[in-house]
Amino acid sequence: MELKDINIDAIQEAIENQNTDYLKSILIEMYPADIAELLDEVNKDEARFIYGLLDKEEAAAVLMELEDDVRERFINSFSTTEIAHDLIDNLDSDDAADLINELPGNIRSDVLSQITDRQQAQDIADLLFYPSDTAGGLMAKELVKVNISWQVVTCIREMRSQAFEVEHVYAVYVVDDQNVLKGILSLTSLLIASPRDKIADLYEEDVISVKAHQQGEEVAQIMNKYDLVVLPVVDELGRLIGRITIDDVVDFIKDEADKDYQLMSGISHDIESSDKIWVITHGRLFWLIVALFGGIVGSRVISNYEDQISINPEMAFFMPLIAAMAGNVGVQSSALIVQALANNSLSGSIINRLLKELTIGMINGLVCSILLLIYSLVFTPTLALSITVSVSLLTVILFASVFGSFVPLALHRFKIDPALATGPFITTANDIIGLFIYFMIGRMMYGLF
Amino acid sequence: MELKDINIDAIQEAIENQNTDYLKSILIEMYPADIAELLDEVNKDEARFIYGLLDKEEAAAVLMELEDDVRERFINSFSTTEIAHDLIDNLDSDDAADLINELPGNIRSDVLSQITDRQQAQDIADLLFYPSDTAGGLMAKELVKVNISWQVVTCIREMRSQAFEVEHVYAVYVVDDQNVLKGILSLTSLLIASPRDKIADLYEEDVISVKAHQQGEEVAQIMNKYDLVVLPVVDELGRLIGRITIDDVVDFIKDEADKDYQLMSGISHDIESSDKIWVITHGRLFWLIVALFGGIVGSRVISNYEDQISINPEMAFFMPLIAAMAGNVGVQSSALIVQALANNSLSGSIINRLLKELTIGMINGLVCSILLLIYSLVFTPTLALSITVSVSLLTVILFASVFGSFVPLALHRFKIDPALATGPFITTANDIIGLFIYFMIGRMMYGLF
Repeated sequence: MELKDINIDAIQEAIENQNTDYLKSILIEMYPADIAELLDEVNKDEARFIYGLLDKEEAAAVLMELEDDVRERFINSFSTTEIAHDLIDNLDSDDAADLINELPGNIRSDVLSQITDRQQAQDIADLLFYPSDTAGGLMAKELVKVNISWQVVTCIREMRSQAFEVEHVYAVYVVDDQNVLKGILSLTSLLIASPRDKIADLYEEDVISVKAHQQGEEVAQIMNKYDLVVLPVVDELGRLIGRITIDDVVDFIKDEADKDYQLMSGISHDIESSDKIWVITHGRLFWLIVALFGGIVGSRVISNYEDQISINPEMAFFMPLIAAMAGNVGVQSSALIVQALANNSLSGSIINRLLKELTIGMINGLVCSILLLIYSLVFTPTLALSITVSVSLLTVILFASVFGSFVPLALHRFKIDPALATGPFITTANDIIGLFIYFMIGRMMYGLF
Repeated sequence: MELKDINIDAIQEAIENQNTDYLKSILIEMYPADIAELLDEVNKDEARFIYGLLDKEEAAAVLMELEDDVRERFINSFSTTEIAHDLIDNLDSDDAADLINELPGNIRSDVLSQITDRQQAQDIADLLFYPSDTAGGLMAKELVKVNISWQVVTCIREMRSQAFEVEHVYAVYVVDDQNVLKGILSLTSLLIASPRDKIADLYEEDVISVKAHQQGEEVAQIMNKYDLVVLPVVDELGRLIGRITIDDVVDFIKDEADKDYQLMSGISHDIESSDKIWVITHGRLFWLIVALFGGIVGSRVISNYEDQISINPEMAFFMPLIAAMAGNVGVQSSALIVQALANNSLSGSIINRLLKELTIGMINGLVCSILLLIYSLVFTPTLALSITVSVSLLTVILFASVFGSFVPLALHRFKIDPALATGPFITTANDIIGLFIYFMIGRMMYGLF
C-alpha cells in the first residue's frame, strides 16, 4: 500500500481514538519507505504514536527512510540504550554507521559500547573510520564469501550460515586463507555444479574491486561504466573488507547531480522545496548577495560612461541585452565543462577545448549579432548604435564562451569544485565584463560613425 | 586493464605490423567498456581492425558499450546476416531490442527474420512493442522463475536450465500456472531449505512490480524509493513478462538529471562537450536566439523611458542589476520547483507553495534591498534614485519569486516538461518584467522626491 492509497484523515482519527488494531492492520501492508512518508505527513505526536506501533526491525528500517531532519528529531527522543538495542541491532552495518555518524559526538561512544552484537559493534567501528564520501564510507560489511580451497558442498554449508546475516545475496566472493579477494562465484555456476566440484575450478578470476579510500564519485563511475550491481571493497593488501550495493550509489549519483543543479541555479547548499522557510532563505541568500555586489560593480562600470548615456541615451536600451547574452553564453559553456568533468568524459588539452569553444562562440556570435544588426538597422535611428550593439554582442559572446569554459577548468585544476563557477558567478562576472566591452566599443564607434 | 593503463602508440604500431598476437593478449585483459573506450581513441580503420579480433560474444558486448554515434557507424558496415547471427544472438533481449531500434527501418524486419534463436526473436519482437521510456522498453525478458506448486528440488533443477540463459541471477520469481506473479524467492531461503520443502511455504508474497506501460521515470522513482536492484514487470493481468535491472535505470536517472541540467543552462537538446562543433552550436543556439529576442523586447521597454534616461542618466546604472537579480531569483525559484517535481516530493497546494515562496522572497528581498539602499544612499547623489532602486529591487524579487514558482507549476499542470521554464526562459522573462517594474517605480519616485 502506497501513501497515495491511504486515507490520512482516517489514520489521524484512529490515532485520536487509540485504535491500534486498525493502525497496525494498515501499517502491516506498507513498506518502510511508505511509512516514512506517512510520518512526514502527520504531526509530531501522531508520528511518535505510529512509530511506537512498529516492531523493532520495521522501526529501524523506517528510521533509515526518513528525511535527515525528521530522523534527527526522532533520534533525539531515544535513550542511548534504545538506540543501541532497538535500532542499531536491526540495521545493516552501513546504515548503522551512517546513523551513528549523525548522532551528537558526546553520545556516540556511549551507543557503540551498548551494542550487544560484538561483531556488529566491531563492523561499525571499522566503518566509522572512513570518510562518508569514500568507498569505505559507502560499503557494508555484510557479505557472503567462500574459501578458494573449498568444495561446493562446504561452500553451500558455509553460505547457509553467512546468508542468515545478509538480506540479499547478489554475489559470492572467493578469498584465500589471508582473506585476499581472488574472484567471484556466480550463483548460476554454483547451482549447476556438483557437490564435490572445487571452487578453484568454478570461480571467475576477473572481478572489479575498489580500494576503501577511493572517492564515492569514482565508485559511482566504475559501477556505472561496468553496469555493476554490487562491488567488492578491498584494503591496500587486497583483502576483502566490504561491498557496495548500487542503491547506495544511486543516492550518491542523485545527490551529486542535485548539487550541481542547485549550484547552477544559485543555491549554495542542499535544500528542498519542502524545507523550512529559513532554511530555504539561507540557501538562496548567499548567491543573491554575491550577485547584488556584482550588480553594484556593474553600476559603477556604467557610471563611468554617464556622459555618453546623457548624450546617447539609446545606448542604455541594449545594456540588459548585452549583459543577459553574456550571462547565457557563459552559463552554457561552463555547464558543458562541468558536466564533462563530472562524467569524466573531457578529452583533449585545455588549449584545444578553448579553441573549440571559440569556434562555437564565433558561429553562435555571428548568427546572433547579424540578427541584432538587421533588427537595429531597421528599428533604431543611429548607425553608430547598430554597429556598436552587433559588434559588442559578437565580442561579448566570444569572451563569455572562453571565460565560461576557462573558469571551471581552472577551478578543477586547483582541486576546487568546478560547479561553483556555474550559475550566478559566471552570469555576474560576464555581466560586468560584457557591459565594460559594450561601452568601450560604443565609445569607439560613436567616435567613428 | 583500463584504458589509462594502455599504451595507445604501442597498440597502433601493432595494428600497423598486423601483430595480432600482441593485440589479442591485451584485449583479453580488458573489459568490454574499456575496449569501447579504446575504439573511440583510435581511427576508424584501426577500430575496425581491433574489433575484428574480438570473439563474437565479446564483440557484441563491446558494441553495446560504444557511444551511440560510433555504434551506428559500426553497425552500418555489417550485413543483416552478421547483425542477426554474430551480434543479436549474443546479446540480452533488452540490448538486442535497443540495437534493432537503432537500425534503419527498412532492414529491421530483415534482421529479425534471420535470428536463428526463435525464442530470442520472439522476445525481441515483444520488446519492440513498448516505447523506450516505459517499463516495457527498459525490461529484459531473461529471468529465472519457478512455479508455486513445486518443491525445492524441482525448483533447483529448473533453475539450472534457466540460469544458463541468465548471466546474473538477482532474484527468483514465483508464478502460478497462469504465469501470474505471486512473489519472490530469496536465494538465501533456497540455500537453507531442504529438497522436499515446498516453494509455497518458502516464498515471500510481498513483491513490488510495475506494469509494462508505466513510465521510465516512475520505474526509476520506485527502484530508488524501495532500494531495489531488480524489479519484475507484469502485464495488465499480472502475468510476469520481464524484469528491469537497476543499471539500466541508473542510465535513465542520469540522463534525466543531465537533461534538466542542460535545460537550466540554456541547452535545448542533449549534447556533450565531446560532440562535433555543429552539434554543440545547434544545441546552444536555440535558447540564445530566444534570449536575444527577449533582450530586444527589453530594449523596447527601456526605449519608452528614453526621456527619463536623458534627464536622469543615473537610472541606467542600475538597470543590469535589477534585471540580473530578477533573473537569479526566478531561476532559484523555478529550480526548486522543478527538482521537487522530479523527485515527486512536492507537497501542499499551489496557493500554499506560492505563499511560501512569497515569504522567502520577502525576506531575501528585504535583505538585498536594504543593502542596496545603504549603498546607494552613501554612494549615489540622488535620494530618488536610492529609493527607486531599493523599492524596485524588493518588488522585482517578490515578483520573480512567485513567477519563477508559478510557471513550472503551470507547465506541469498542462503536462509540459516544467524544466523548460528554467534557465534562459525564466531569466529573460524576469529581465523584461523587472525592467518594466523598475521604470514604473522610477517615474513614480522621481515625481515624489
